[in-house]
Amino acid sequence: MSNKGLPRHIGFIPDGNRRWALERELPKEAGYSFGIAPGLALYERCKQLGVDEVSVYGFTQDNTRRPSEQTERFRAACVEFATDIARRGASLLVVGDESSALFPPELRAFRRRQGEGMKVNFLVNYGWEWDLDGLREGGLRSGDVSRLDLVVRWGGGRRLSGFLPVQSVYADIYVVDAYWPDYERAHLEAALAWYRQQDRTLGG
Amino acid sequence: MSNKGLPRHIGFIPDGNRRWALERELPKEAGYSFGIAPGLALYERCKQLGVDEVSVYGFTQDNTRRPSEQTERFRAACVEFATDIARRGASLLVVGDESSALFPPELRAFRRRQGEGMKVNFLVNYGWEWDLDGLREGGLRSGDVSRLDLVVRWGGGRRLSGFLPVQSVYADIYVVDAYWPDYERAHLEAALAWYRQQDRTLGG
Repeated sequence: MSNKGLPRHIGFIPDGNRRWALERELPKEAGYSFGIAPGLALYERCKQLGVDEVSVYGFTQDNTRRPSEQTERFRAACVEFATDIARRGASLLVVGDESSALFPPELRAFRRRQGEGMKVNFLVNYGWEWDLDGLREGGLRSGDVSRLDLVVRWGGGRRLSGFLPVQSVYADIYVVDAYWPDYERAHLEAALAWYRQQDRTLGG
Repeated sequence: MSNKGLPRHIGFIPDGNRRWALERELPKEAGYSFGIAPGLALYERCKQLGVDEVSVYGFTQDNTRRPSEQTERFRAACVEFATDIARRGASLLVVGDESSALFPPELRAFRRRQGEGMKVNFLVNYGWEWDLDGLREGGLRSGDVSRLDLVVRWGGGRRLSGFLPVQSVYADIYVVDAYWPDYERAHLEAALAWYRQQDRTLGG
């Protein structure tokens, strides 16, 4: 298979877990655990395609203002996802403010990249201001994350919501209307097909 | 008229001037001058609607790597547009690196905001790195530009291309496939109608 036109680095914003749960008459916070299996499927597919690096939105410092039923569930879902992909051999880096009690202690070791496989940058208790504030002290706090070629967002929102603002400056943004727990491989294929058609001049 | 759901601050990325010219068998650089009248029409419409602030992509430091036939023409078009909206009473701030020879000297006075009308931030010889580098010295170089609610891009590209990365973190992004010189008021109306339907949680 040719890699022509395959993005080197893809960002994923897995939005819509709560709306998915509400549609099923489940409590909002029940949605998060249904996002783990899709995440693993997406990870395996990217690895299979030969993508070099992926960045995944876990949760943000803003998200932690939500009710504790929600914050507990999304923290647990993030720990489960991260632990599983580390076990599967990902080269995992967790990017987020570990100085806060809201940062899951289980993930502290991954604030330095661990492992040798496909690079996965997982944003956990991440904040764009926290990230950029690093510039005041010499460099971005996400300095080990490379520039994004493509960002795929589920849940219909046409915005970045603070997702790696520096790495996203030239990224093509593809939006899937389906909610994240309804992830299908076809969503990724459609995003990649669309990406191949984009004209990228990078301003030149 | 009710202002409910009207974005307070809108960003505009007027892309597609060169492709528009090529479609008409004109030289690429001929496209820029056809972008001025649409810009004035858009300015007047935003003022009429009661928008508080608009930010407009003029050209970037990356753009200045293009052939001189192009850089001369887009610089001239930017000067003409800026001069005209200042005359029309805009509260004009030009945001960009004025230390370079590529910054039009005619616009130097507008590196500090001038005028009392609708705020217009016009990005001229702007660079996202130049902007963020200000953080190393205390603050963004675009520090006088407020957070964007909506970004409208012409020319079909689904990306920000370095447009005010900090102010764009939560902006809804609306893409018009038409090239910028083919601007019609209906494009703006469609963007505003779409914006009113978006659910904005700002992460909370």
